[in-house]
Amino acid sequence: MAQEKKFVESITDMEVDFPQWYTDVVKKADLTDYSSLKGCMIIRPYGYAIWELIQKNLDERFKATGHENVYMPMFIPEGLLQKEKDHVEGFAPEVAWVTHGGEKKLEERICVRPTSETLFCEHYANIIQSYRDLPKLYNQWCSVVRWEKTTRPFLRTMEFLWQEGHTAHATAEEAQEETIRMLNVYADFCREVLAIPVIKGEKTAKERFAGAKATYTIESLMHDGKSLQSGTSHNFGDGFARAFGIQYTDKDNQLQYVHQTSWGFTTRMIGAIIMVHGDNSGLVLPPAVAPTQVVIIPIAQHKEGVLEKANKLAGRLSSICRVKLDDTDKSAGWKFSEYEMKGVPLRLEIGPKDMEKNQAVLARRDTGEKIIVSLNELETKVEQLLREIQANLLKKAEERRDSKTYTAKDMDEFERILNETPGFIKAMWCGDQACEDAIKERTAATSRCIPFEQEEISDTCICCGKKAKHMVYWGRAY
Amino acid sequence: MAQEKKFVESITDMEVDFPQWYTDVVKKADLTDYSSLKGCMIIRPYGYAIWELIQKNLDERFKATGHENVYMPMFIPEGLLQKEKDHVEGFAPEVAWVTHGGEKKLEERICVRPTSETLFCEHYANIIQSYRDLPKLYNQWCSVVRWEKTTRPFLRTMEFLWQEGHTAHATAEEAQEETIRMLNVYADFCREVLAIPVIKGEKTAKERFAGAKATYTIESLMHDGKSLQSGTSHNFGDGFARAFGIQYTDKDNQLQYVHQTSWGFTTRMIGAIIMVHGDNSGLVLPPAVAPTQVVIIPIAQHKEGVLEKANKLAGRLSSICRVKLDDTDKSAGWKFSEYEMKGVPLRLEIGPKDMEKNQAVLARRDTGEKIIVSLNELETKVEQLLREIQANLLKKAEERRDSKTYTAKDMDEFERILNETPGFIKAMWCGDQACEDAIKERTAATSRCIPFEQEEISDTCICCGKKAKHMVYWGRAY
Repeated sequence: MAQEKKFVESITDMEVDFPQWYTDVVKKADLTDYSSLKGCMIIRPYGYAIWELIQKNLDERFKATGHENVYMPMFIPEGLLQKEKDHVEGFAPEVAWVTHGGEKKLEERICVRPTSETLFCEHYANIIQSYRDLPKLYNQWCSVVRWEKTTRPFLRTMEFLWQEGHTAHATAEEAQEETIRMLNVYADFCREVLAIPVIKGEKTAKERFAGAKATYTIESLMHDGKSLQSGTSHNFGDGFARAFGIQYTDKDNQLQYVHQTSWGFTTRMIGAIIMVHGDNSGLVLPPAVAPTQVVIIPIAQHKEGVLEKANKLAGRLSSICRVKLDDTDKSAGWKFSEYEMKGVPLRLEIGPKDMEKNQAVLARRDTGEKIIVSLNELETKVEQLLREIQANLLKKAEERRDSKTYTAKDMDEFERILNETPGFIKAMWCGDQACEDAIKERTAATSRCIPFEQEEISDTCICCGKKAKHMVYWGRAY
Repeated sequence: MAQEKKFVESITDMEVDFPQWYTDVVKKADLTDYSSLKGCMIIRPYGYAIWELIQKNLDERFKATGHENVYMPMFIPEGLLQKEKDHVEGFAPEVAWVTHGGEKKLEERICVRPTSETLFCEHYANIIQSYRDLPKLYNQWCSVVRWEKTTRPFLRTMEFLWQEGHTAHATAEEAQEETIRMLNVYADFCREVLAIPVIKGEKTAKERFAGAKATYTIESLMHDGKSLQSGTSHNFGDGFARAFGIQYTDKDNQLQYVHQTSWGFTTRMIGAIIMVHGDNSGLVLPPAVAPTQVVIIPIAQHKEGVLEKANKLAGRLSSICRVKLDDTDKSAGWKFSEYEMKGVPLRLEIGPKDMEKNQAVLARRDTGEKIIVSLNELETKVEQLLREIQANLLKKAEERRDSKTYTAKDMDEFERILNETPGFIKAMWCGDQACEDAIKERTAATSRCIPFEQEEISDTCICCGKKAKHMVYWGRAY
């Protein structure tokens, strides 16, 4: 047990220093490594396997809603980026510029995509002619680059992996339906797969995506009371279509502009998994995105028949879940804490005494509970426990989120909550950006969203006291 | 039938102008579009769906051989690229250089990865300490950039998608085994999935990857007699390990350098599928990589019950293959030629007369043959036909490849074959680069590989007449 302690002690307590706890977990769970270029991360096999599970599940949801995958170039010529005015203003300050190809200076600079609206628009202008060509429901999985100054693994890096959906529709109504449909796909995915509850709502004008008519968001709450924007879906109206000349002939032979949307989900959600479910023993993974759902650790594995039995159980479980047998020569205690750190949902211990009794010991990562199970009902029990763990993680996250959601009626209360018990704050707002700016200036909290589910906390704006228009979720954010 | 003809006539005959035929097929089958940046291509849904099928199958083969996926940054600082001398000389002339991040000039230029050996090496130096850490069997799926002057969709583009495997081993023997193992994975994949037969062999020193000790290749032959390098696997020995200081402590507590490999497979193989199997009606897809394996075309679909029946058949077939029902209002003839162009392996026609007889008509894309099948045995027959088509495409490709493989004993014969009946030429070589250079200078043919299966065509070098060391496959290549 000495080894186990040492392994665990080497991460910081989340109550003592949450950012350091986060960094420790990312490193000790073998999720990422640093590269020599500051701000870029290496996603290691264990971290990438989580992303593959996210991808697979989301991709199925996209395809089930009629979307097709494509691949656009990673380069955008400067002239193309500039075609939509708001969009270029939003992104130009943070792009990487390529100026030379081989030995030769380029005539026009090109940037590495920070997002691909301009590329999709150019393509849509080429391929959309008639109402028969609509809707176009495209998605791509790729990496994008934003030249960030301060970076943290998963949460904010110069390059990150994501998917970006880009769609074109005949009418404004269809575009709006699509925007909300995909926000719901994200929210359902977070809830059902990542076990993360989210608040759905609209961003204020100030927080809107560069070039969008409306931006919708899902917001989640981390262990430390900070919120994380977890997925966004934008309705562009016909703004990009006008800038890029994307027109179609309708059934009455009239030229019309298309209406567009885009929506994105990124590797930063691996950071959310860590910060929503993790604890002082490390990562805690929801079974649905755990690369290993059950780890088998043989006890006294040098004794006759133990490894053979462990192998047999691994074979049995491999048909119902992602199972791994660790038969290395490390001590069992060391292995226990290693897989706790990696957040493996279930540990199965099998030793000579268990074998005598035709049983195994299952240990839950989420509760620490140990359950003795007859080998006759192993599969049933493992399936049941994985379901229970998935449900329990969501329940715990909901309870924590709810217990950290407050209402404030004046700025003093607002500020006191933020400083003493950080979390979401529900408060009324007049709709004026001046108030939003003033609140941010005073408290470092930003408007997270105008939630779809409105409540009337009071009838005046928390900042200026004028008539309130919306209830807003506020918080300090990653 | 007028419409059908028009659709077909719009592609060039491959016998008249093969490059134009290729360009026509790529465009008419909706595989790619051009982007405003010359040399970059957009992979459209139909083309990308082929790549997804390739990825899925290859990825399973990589995982089955113990490999794990990771993600490395897309940027390489200039200093890191320069660490291995041969490697930088090979790649520096063709990379894209990023010189500015946002508004700021960078202190050190960074390039967009042309390949990621240097990044993997830096990471391996960080994470490999002991023999227990070996082997490391990593792979990544990503895009890479090479600043090419002349480009063609799939075959040669500035940016392309690929996978790159990078492994580190304790011994030279293990690294060599891995190099050959992965070459075999590629060869088996080409044969079993793409229905493309390949020649396996070693590249000459001149054609080796920059920094490799040995490069192995699989070479395939296109319809026009040109060859295409279809996958490469490199043994680096300990060259990169010495340049990057990748050392481990062995069981005797001695510091040792690791031995490394890398291997890659790219989207250019979609070009190979087109050029190996295609014909004058367009693309011909092997069922294993066909996004749609069976297209159902209702005949007289306005007649009662036809669409209903077609839908029912689509439902039945969806459990055994990738099926699509085209119920748009285009004419049946138009649809026929459209799906021929797209290379869909099987077409199913169902109309009122078929319904009366409880039958459907199946048309094979590879042979044009029409088969009447009872609806009672539809699933069995479709499965059987898809298997037959897959096998037939491989057989035809093998026969064509064999019929275009020649032997030459002197340079006149060599040149005459190349000019009159282009294909692979087997000829003896002394092993001297001067002869390789002279042959290329005179004929524009390059050494494709020194095949594992050697034959003794004569005992002297075809170029200099000195004692021959190897039988070599030569050819003009893409």
